[in-house]
Amino acid sequence: MRALDSLFLPRSVALVGASPDKRNFRGRLVSVLLRHRTDAPIYFVTPSHKMIESVECHISVREIPEPVDLAILAIPAAAVSAVLEECGRSGVNAVLIVSSGFADENTEEGNARQEDVKSICRKYGMILLGPNSEGFLTTGLPLAASFSAAVANGEYHGEKFTAGNKGIALVSQSGGLGFGIYNRARLQGLKFAYVVAAGNQALLEIHDIVEYALHDPDTGVIVVVLEGLIGASRFLAVLEKAAEFRKPVIVCKIGRSEAGVTAVTTHTGTLAGNYQAYQAVFRQYGVQEAHDIAQVIDTAGCFCHLADRLPVGRRVGVLTPSGGAGIMLADKCEEQGLEVNPLDSLTRGRLAEVLPPYASLANPVDITAQGVIEVGYAVPLKIMLACPELDTVVVVCATYNAEYIAADMERLHSIRDSSDKPVIFCAYTAANPGALKLLVEAGFPFMTDMRNCAIALSDMVNYQRYLKRMQALETPVSTVNPVAVDLHQFGERRVLCEYEVKSLLARLRLSQSAGELARTAEEAMRYFEKHDSPAAMKIQSPDIPHKTDTGGVLLNLDTPQALSDGFFRLMEMAALDKPDADIHGVLLEPMSKPGLEMMIGIYRDKDFGLMLCAGAGGVFVEVLEDIAVTPLPVSRERAGCLLQELKLWKLLTGFRGNEPADVAALVDLIVGLSGFAEANKDSIAELDLNPVIVHPEGQGLTIADALIVRNP
Amino acid sequence: MRALDSLFLPRSVALVGASPDKRNFRGRLVSVLLRHRTDAPIYFVTPSHKMIESVECHISVREIPEPVDLAILAIPAAAVSAVLEECGRSGVNAVLIVSSGFADENTEEGNARQEDVKSICRKYGMILLGPNSEGFLTTGLPLAASFSAAVANGEYHGEKFTAGNKGIALVSQSGGLGFGIYNRARLQGLKFAYVVAAGNQALLEIHDIVEYALHDPDTGVIVVVLEGLIGASRFLAVLEKAAEFRKPVIVCKIGRSEAGVTAVTTHTGTLAGNYQAYQAVFRQYGVQEAHDIAQVIDTAGCFCHLADRLPVGRRVGVLTPSGGAGIMLADKCEEQGLEVNPLDSLTRGRLAEVLPPYASLANPVDITAQGVIEVGYAVPLKIMLACPELDTVVVVCATYNAEYIAADMERLHSIRDSSDKPVIFCAYTAANPGALKLLVEAGFPFMTDMRNCAIALSDMVNYQRYLKRMQALETPVSTVNPVAVDLHQFGERRVLCEYEVKSLLARLRLSQSAGELARTAEEAMRYFEKHDSPAAMKIQSPDIPHKTDTGGVLLNLDTPQALSDGFFRLMEMAALDKPDADIHGVLLEPMSKPGLEMMIGIYRDKDFGLMLCAGAGGVFVEVLEDIAVTPLPVSRERAGCLLQELKLWKLLTGFRGNEPADVAALVDLIVGLSGFAEANKDSIAELDLNPVIVHPEGQGLTIADALIVRNP
Repeated sequence: MRALDSLFLPRSVALVGASPDKRNFRGRLVSVLLRHRTDAPIYFVTPSHKMIESVECHISVREIPEPVDLAILAIPAAAVSAVLEECGRSGVNAVLIVSSGFADENTEEGNARQEDVKSICRKYGMILLGPNSEGFLTTGLPLAASFSAAVANGEYHGEKFTAGNKGIALVSQSGGLGFGIYNRARLQGLKFAYVVAAGNQALLEIHDIVEYALHDPDTGVIVVVLEGLIGASRFLAVLEKAAEFRKPVIVCKIGRSEAGVTAVTTHTGTLAGNYQAYQAVFRQYGVQEAHDIAQVIDTAGCFCHLADRLPVGRRVGVLTPSGGAGIMLADKCEEQGLEVNPLDSLTRGRLAEVLPPYASLANPVDITAQGVIEVGYAVPLKIMLACPELDTVVVVCATYNAEYIAADMERLHSIRDSSDKPVIFCAYTAANPGALKLLVEAGFPFMTDMRNCAIALSDMVNYQRYLKRMQALETPVSTVNPVAVDLHQFGERRVLCEYEVKSLLARLRLSQSAGELARTAEEAMRYFEKHDSPAAMKIQSPDIPHKTDTGGVLLNLDTPQALSDGFFRLMEMAALDKPDADIHGVLLEPMSKPGLEMMIGIYRDKDFGLMLCAGAGGVFVEVLEDIAVTPLPVSRERAGCLLQELKLWKLLTGFRGNEPADVAALVDLIVGLSGFAEANKDSIAELDLNPVIVHPEGQGLTIADALIVRNP
Repeated sequence: MRALDSLFLPRSVALVGASPDKRNFRGRLVSVLLRHRTDAPIYFVTPSHKMIESVECHISVREIPEPVDLAILAIPAAAVSAVLEECGRSGVNAVLIVSSGFADENTEEGNARQEDVKSICRKYGMILLGPNSEGFLTTGLPLAASFSAAVANGEYHGEKFTAGNKGIALVSQSGGLGFGIYNRARLQGLKFAYVVAAGNQALLEIHDIVEYALHDPDTGVIVVVLEGLIGASRFLAVLEKAAEFRKPVIVCKIGRSEAGVTAVTTHTGTLAGNYQAYQAVFRQYGVQEAHDIAQVIDTAGCFCHLADRLPVGRRVGVLTPSGGAGIMLADKCEEQGLEVNPLDSLTRGRLAEVLPPYASLANPVDITAQGVIEVGYAVPLKIMLACPELDTVVVVCATYNAEYIAADMERLHSIRDSSDKPVIFCAYTAANPGALKLLVEAGFPFMTDMRNCAIALSDMVNYQRYLKRMQALETPVSTVNPVAVDLHQFGERRVLCEYEVKSLLARLRLSQSAGELARTAEEAMRYFEKHDSPAAMKIQSPDIPHKTDTGGVLLNLDTPQALSDGFFRLMEMAALDKPDADIHGVLLEPMSKPGLEMMIGIYRDKDFGLMLCAGAGGVFVEVLEDIAVTPLPVSRERAGCLLQELKLWKLLTGFRGNEPADVAALVDLIVGLSGFAEANKDSIAELDLNPVIVHPEGQGLTIADALIVRNP
């Protein structure tokens, strides 16, 4: 990873395309670079000027007397390749291309230019950020290699970081949004180590920058603003590493309405959008999602300030001078699954000793506005932090001015030093900049959005639990041995019929029976030679994947005659409905015992590949939108979590006198299916078991319908 | 309503309890009153000082030489009654009591004090705000009768309002939260007419203040911060009036986790919390809900600025210099059910003429950062506003400084004057105060929260539609004639059995059949004299309301012998399970035809009284939480809307080849039930029809189980 030092911590910098005209980006780059005085020498390259802002200009990179570590290219796209060659030959180590006009244009010419750029950089072993990148900021030097107006005023003079006081690395696909977040977060007192606009990611991708930040000693928290991924698996590998480094990753995913699935033979895939796949991955890899700019900032701020004291549980104490504001925060906490419970009598007693008589000692503890004047926040806060039944205290404060906070500062510093529980200040008034500065410098997150406060608390608890879970796992994840099956036995057909899938599943011991295929009415009538209960009969054709919708299923056939009649009826139906269909016969099975109808499926997400999903079966699958997805492979533990995400979980575990369902069998099926899909991931596009009828505990399940669609 | 003028627009003011000590509320009131120079003379009353801040002090209200319109009481609770008497005798018209120590204390003494205060004010016909009120602010005078730090700096010098430029009236139960919102909203350029802390609402209640604001010419938008209601029906009457005045009401409801229902005999009532009842009422009365402080401010700001141009549809155009920020806004729009569609080719063509070639002309229109420098926002904005396929344009802007906005101001003013479509500016960077001021003064809402932007847009569309719906209704709401039934025929029993409810419903023509009660096995066996299909048999006892849970239901009895056996089996079960139960017999009915299982119920909310709810039937009712509620009476139109709120609506209207269900019959049942419940609202506590089996279109429905719980 030290190779990226040439980019982010360069020993010398050249700006190619320097200009004195501040109305354009090249001029702004000049002034931004000069305003952030790094120790690294900065060279300007332009044939048009001899001198810009008292800095001598060179005609080309070649002319620069010393070795150049980082070259910033701010020149027209058409001129980039030639300059890159020159950079390569001159021994430049890293290049930032801010120019647009490459793959971002989505033209043949632009794409060709980007390919050119890639091959030149590869040839000379140069690191490449961009093209079409708004640049980056390394606060520690400081170096602002960006034309963003967010850094135009050069406010940095070399940020200092220590082990207990690290910064945020913000990596954004969108430069505008990334620097916008940075700009706003600065006003809330957040400390950044890096802000990086990834641009077109021709070579350096977001996950590379995240990985750099993982190894970087100045970075404590990583924020990623993401539209989509180029290499999802590489990103996931870095996320896995993040847990080892114990650095929280907060992702803001934009472009959520994008469809993730192109194939639509089964209904399964269409139910889960691409964003749902992202969410499933984030959950699994301990990534905290932030849904808008303020939430990114508030969550990152909490993780930064409270790195050494993440809350261990969901019990929140609320301290406030306004009863109404306290209730509002309690509402938000409850929305996020946090608990705001009444305080124990010991804590109430201790509070009563220090607070005025009109204070309310319930939780929220309402000290009233007069209470702030008389006692301040710190005294009751200290008492609440000592309460063993609270994991966190939120001070829902008024900051009309800095006066009362300032008066409390000594006590607040001592609280910060002596307690290991997190404290957050959340103002219901406007944020007074003086109060904000005092609190943030003392290590307390300060925010004004109560919903974000509750979300950040919940995120921190979840992250703590994720780290614990990761530590507890000796082996990475326990999955079954994948079972490869040669699907070529079915020829080139895209769709495998129910009877074929069922016989596959039976061979893999994922299904108890496969049913019998009958090709003639005579064969069908032989059903009762083996069975003594009524049969279900279903047409079998790769051209009729949705049998139920087209009347291809007959139930409760209880005599040989009914079987024979049924056979002819299904053939007739198929001939009418799809005259050209390739009919394999009919599948005969005993009617299923009753149970809860579920759907288990595998589908292919455009970014993450095969995903497994589970939900309510039958028509309910689309009506209730009660569906949970997870990337493969799925361990037993993960399968259990997946089912618990469903509303139907209540029904599976027994509910209002109903018997609990055979969850163990369902977990077996999910884990087995995951192994099967993993082992055949190149050949499977979709797999749909719907419905799966889950019988009461100990009685297994019945796969009532099944379908596999192969990859073309 | 003019009576309240003495309170909010007094001709003279006396502060009883004036003090020079600014560390307490009484001192702060002195300085706040003096800093807001109203024309009304201000008198100080205190026996302890001759002079405070060069104002002569009087020993009592009686001593004041001129008539006092408003007296502000800031004295210990115990002294209030005596001073009130004096006020009454001296002809004071209105009183604000800021002191606490009344019903807020929740002690016998405090409650008694409040009763005292009420009766004295009633005796002298004095208006009373409080006690325990943080006071109020009338910006037009200006008069700040509050000790809140939010008004401590006296920034008002008489706000001016015109017909096209009205202010917000903010009424809050919680003074702290109310003034906190006001404080924050001022920074976003919002204009207030009134800020009122309702306090204990001993006499003047929130709805009275809202009604005053409805009649007030300076008020355009009303914001209510509410924990609970004292008189829900009075509040609803005022909400109804708000539609006539075309003044939007925005409510922020806190204390959401409170249970609304005490009776728990049926499951129905426990499913809907008190907050769900509020939400149903808000939906019905065109109230826009805001869920946190920032949302209150952003929504109120939009309604204020865009009063003359609320969006007529859900189609949003997005204009931005940052592709990423534009996508984020589009995400938020889609979350709120707004549409961000591609632009038509004419609009794209016109944009291409003015924008640089690297701009993206899709929607979002991404003009890039350089585009802002070269073209600005106004030129493309004007083109987008001319597009007939857009109802609104949001400018997702960068406000690192005011420069580019300032350069655009002339064009933006002309756009504001010439277009009747709403435009909102939403910054993805920090809000530059200069840019904010320019935009807000030109009549554009400016915010920094994209989610709130989308919510406010959706709220405005919904409000427009509500007003249209209200105008379209010639008569208020069409409901059926209520049918009163004498429930005393059932004696004093709390629970009415299924057979009793069904015979009631049959008499009201809400059910086609009532089934037959059999008191002996012989009576049961006679079932086949009338019917030729298998029977369902259910135990009937007011002591066994949940028959299914305890095995009190037998299905598919198809012979007289089965009926006889069944009868004895149910009797035996009941004797074992509830030996003391009062058994009325068994109910016999033909097995129901198949259909969709729903639940229709009536329950009693603590604030709004009887509510009707509908949802998925059977065990699904609790698992899926797919339940919609509405206050009574329910019109046919409202019943339709109610059903459409359900996820199950898809199934009701036919889905994936299923037949559509008999929605008309379901609506008939709901409307009839509403009329029945209205007419018997004093005697009914709960009514539960679960399941109601809705058959295919034209085939009606079957009420499979029914229960009424009477009011004690």
